[in-house]
Amino acid sequence: MNASTAYRRAAVIGGGVIGISWTGLFLAHGLDVVVSDPRPDAEEQVRAGLEEITPALAELGLPTADLTARLRFEPDLAEAVADADVVQENGPERLEAKREIWRTVEQAAPDHALLATSTSGIPATAIAEALRAPERLVVGHPFNPPHLVPLVEIVPGEKTSARTLAQAGDFYTALGKKPQILRKEVPGFVANRLQSALFRECVHLVAEGVVTEAELDAIVTDSIGLRWAVAGPFRTFHLGGGPGGLPHFLRHLGPAMEASWTGLGTPSLDEATVALLTAQAREAFAEEPVPELAARRDRAQIALMRALAASSPEPADKAAA
Amino acid sequence: MNASTAYRRAAVIGGGVIGISWTGLFLAHGLDVVVSDPRPDAEEQVRAGLEEITPALAELGLPTADLTARLRFEPDLAEAVADADVVQENGPERLEAKREIWRTVEQAAPDHALLATSTSGIPATAIAEALRAPERLVVGHPFNPPHLVPLVEIVPGEKTSARTLAQAGDFYTALGKKPQILRKEVPGFVANRLQSALFRECVHLVAEGVVTEAELDAIVTDSIGLRWAVAGPFRTFHLGGGPGGLPHFLRHLGPAMEASWTGLGTPSLDEATVALLTAQAREAFAEEPVPELAARRDRAQIALMRALAASSPEPADKAAA
Repeated sequence: MNASTAYRRAAVIGGGVIGISWTGLFLAHGLDVVVSDPRPDAEEQVRAGLEEITPALAELGLPTADLTARLRFEPDLAEAVADADVVQENGPERLEAKREIWRTVEQAAPDHALLATSTSGIPATAIAEALRAPERLVVGHPFNPPHLVPLVEIVPGEKTSARTLAQAGDFYTALGKKPQILRKEVPGFVANRLQSALFRECVHLVAEGVVTEAELDAIVTDSIGLRWAVAGPFRTFHLGGGPGGLPHFLRHLGPAMEASWTGLGTPSLDEATVALLTAQAREAFAEEPVPELAARRDRAQIALMRALAASSPEPADKAAA
Repeated sequence: MNASTAYRRAAVIGGGVIGISWTGLFLAHGLDVVVSDPRPDAEEQVRAGLEEITPALAELGLPTADLTARLRFEPDLAEAVADADVVQENGPERLEAKREIWRTVEQAAPDHALLATSTSGIPATAIAEALRAPERLVVGHPFNPPHLVPLVEIVPGEKTSARTLAQAGDFYTALGKKPQILRKEVPGFVANRLQSALFRECVHLVAEGVVTEAELDAIVTDSIGLRWAVAGPFRTFHLGGGPGGLPHFLRHLGPAMEASWTGLGTPSLDEATVALLTAQAREAFAEEPVPELAARRDRAQIALMRALAASSPEPADKAAA
């Protein structure tokens, strides 16, 4: 399927960082986009944000000439979604705010519209309690920024229909994303839980004085980061287990792995720890403003994505939804 | 400095997978290498292993013509290290075996030789108790395979001298590696602890049926893996915190991060879990033998390393030893 035919008109609710990134991606894929945000300076903010990400969209190989020609702004939510094929909501991360938005959207949007929330923390089940047709709502959680990072976690609520999940998968795939449909609703979904697990040990090691933040970052980029960009943790251990692969690894090194878990740190982000982490961050990252560092990181990441696409480490994307 | 002048003669103790990889790297950087391994088929194994990794060495841009011209084999340990400038030990991961090896090496090797063990699990402090000059021994722990992954963790024992640490840093840097000197001896060092922390949550999510192994791997390669290949966890959160960077992130999202830690899984690798992980591995990775999958992964990783080198995400490697 083709996003520009099946989903021609998108409504983006909320013009913050995530909303801007989705808007840029949708526009670059030829969709008409209505942004709805009640803030008086929303249009100005969104246009400025789009200008900022346009170079990255271009580096990704997307057409960016007249990017905003099919963009409009409509503060009234019901008006904004009235003829949408897809609604991507990026409102405040508060349950009541989400419910109120979605009650309005459900009433005003066409029956065929795909209804997706970018929430990183509120279960679709809880939001959908406010809806007449809870089977229509799904979490489409991007890994920030959505225009750049391939992953979109599609997370069903208890009542989300298989049809909605399939539609969401088709939609994000057509945008060049790599969606994954989770089999269960779980707090933090998958990517953020993994990030949280790793970060806990990072905080422990820095708090214990084993390494500085900058040293730890270098260790990650020079080892596991490189590995996991090419092959995930299971595949990595499969390839590290010799000809017997992961089964061999689990049988022979599983006990040592399990034992290592009991030795992992359980730090807290108390005042002293936050002060230490803050001081090290100021030293490690002071040399350049965040936006410039981020732009350089993003350029490097695009170069990496291109290299990966050209060398295709996997025979076929078996895991894709 | 230049490895081929300061460290011209290397002794590699143990001709297993790690020993072979170090041997290939040393040879490709112009060192004379003596491999010492008491197994009768050691020479055959090492030569076969070197042939297997030669294409990767070539793709890394290293000279591989006549790679084995400066390679010899000497089963007798004392003979093997007699005129070594550096000894890299990859013997059995048992304390007594390491102590016996190093007692012999210390007596037989020149006084100026750098003495490094590849151990991933035994503290230099414990091994060095067998030595007259414990300040000379250091852990030089590669992330497998050493000829490919940039990281080498240099881990001091309690008595390792600053001079030894500096020499180890110079040696691995001259081989094109990215060594990191840890500030403290800690079980599992840094990279394996981080890997263990992430893998624990991976096992939890698969055991709970949230995702399959293949789906989890795809989530990682399409999000955090990509990120961490370019910027480590602290830098990633620094860039995710807006203009206020990591300090802002810690102040505003620290409590939510800390709360998320309490919700992480604490799985065990019991029989049922190992059976589930094994069954999924057979399904996910059955299509191709491990060596072919590994070779493809390695090619992809080399492509990625080249792309990163060309785009240089960081202004200077501040964290390097």
